[in-house]
Amino acid sequence: MTPSRETFEARLRAIGAERYHDKHPFHLRLHSGGCSPDEVRAWVINRYYYQSRIPMKDAAFMSRVEDPDLRRAWVSRLLDHDGHPSDGERREGGIVRWLRLAEAVGLDPAYVASCDGVLAGTRFAVDAYVRFVRETPLLEAVAASLTELFAPKIHADRIEGLLKHYAFANDQSLSYFRKRLDEAPKDVAFGLGYVLDHADTLEKQDAAAAALTFKTDVLWSQLDALEHAYVTPARIPPGAWRPGTGLLPVAAE
Amino acid sequence: MTPSRETFEARLRAIGAERYHDKHPFHLRLHSGGCSPDEVRAWVINRYYYQSRIPMKDAAFMSRVEDPDLRRAWVSRLLDHDGHPSDGERREGGIVRWLRLAEAVGLDPAYVASCDGVLAGTRFAVDAYVRFVRETPLLEAVAASLTELFAPKIHADRIEGLLKHYAFANDQSLSYFRKRLDEAPKDVAFGLGYVLDHADTLEKQDAAAAALTFKTDVLWSQLDALEHAYVTPARIPPGAWRPGTGLLPVAAE
Repeated sequence: MTPSRETFEARLRAIGAERYHDKHPFHLRLHSGGCSPDEVRAWVINRYYYQSRIPMKDAAFMSRVEDPDLRRAWVSRLLDHDGHPSDGERREGGIVRWLRLAEAVGLDPAYVASCDGVLAGTRFAVDAYVRFVRETPLLEAVAASLTELFAPKIHADRIEGLLKHYAFANDQSLSYFRKRLDEAPKDVAFGLGYVLDHADTLEKQDAAAAALTFKTDVLWSQLDALEHAYVTPARIPPGAWRPGTGLLPVAAE
Repeated sequence: MTPSRETFEARLRAIGAERYHDKHPFHLRLHSGGCSPDEVRAWVINRYYYQSRIPMKDAAFMSRVEDPDLRRAWVSRLLDHDGHPSDGERREGGIVRWLRLAEAVGLDPAYVASCDGVLAGTRFAVDAYVRFVRETPLLEAVAASLTELFAPKIHADRIEGLLKHYAFANDQSLSYFRKRLDEAPKDVAFGLGYVLDHADTLEKQDAAAAALTFKTDVLWSQLDALEHAYVTPARIPPGAWRPGTGLLPVAAE
């Protein structure tokens, strides 16, 4: 017998409770002020790669959707990150806001946008996610997006923690996270409804749960790569960003 | 030596002059009032499949674009076809307008939107285009879109010809084509600029020209399939739409 919607939703939420990257030691240190400026920079540089690939992931999803209504429900994710094509205030998307954070921590936004210096571990994890969404059944692709269920808490914790502990943190530099607090709930309500509606057999529930688990691995493993490379004892791999480089002129002085 | 931009642009335009589907006998008959109501319906049903896949094609393109500015320049194509996610007048996209044309020629728009009855020849041609854009270098994917260079004339001819010859034709039913007259020039100016800028070797110019040629084949071959199946002597293949079906109740009476 197929477990009920409620049972299935609880199963999905339990995956977040156990595996979401808010529990990663790097995030715990970041939010409590324990990260050095260079550790924060390394996080901003590597997390930019994830941000920059999210619209490609959403486009890959839409490229497989035959139903115009589903595409129309999905396209706002892409616009939220890339910005709207029309002029004016809404033109600015999450990627621009992330680069503002980069600037606030003393990084040259052009360097960050180049994605030079991103860890191979970050690239492999993020590229695996884009490929997953390009190749798996739509149900699993949507289920993988459901880490957004757990994002509002991490964004709220992050805003509070960063504001309390870091001089660079203010409304301007943290606008990415504030904006996601508005955007994510709408997306996740749609995605959760879709998954609950479409996972109508135990087999599909298993596949959706596995997809969400995979996505938590994608997020966790990025922080592992970061921790390994930049936190004492730092072991920065060849080609990765080195502290003291990629800075704004003023920060380098 | 690489031929100049002007020489290359003339080469691209010559491809349209020779191969664009405005020269196909089916279009010549359609625009001059020579098509029967059922031939027009068959065209509307099959062309819907092309319309419905264009946003998937554009999403496939964006899923491979790493530059947020290029994605932002491209996304309006997707929004033009699917409609904008916000409410209001702009919500309506080309797909909705095409279904209005379907209704005007007496077809049940739900039947048309189902894509049941689309010719296999149409599917193969259109799916080949989506796959091409998903798989080839970005330059070739953009070059394939340049059939839009030749579209304003066919849309203008079509509006004039349909209005003159068919009772179903009016501002409402032809709104798809009128709207494309506004949208296409902006898209094609961008696409042409991109191709002229990026095809900076003879090898790339050859590849771009081949991509545009391929796209003219995609369009032409859809009309061949239509002509073969529905124009005297009609040879409708198994599973394809049959006249008298898929109609609105009022048209069926």
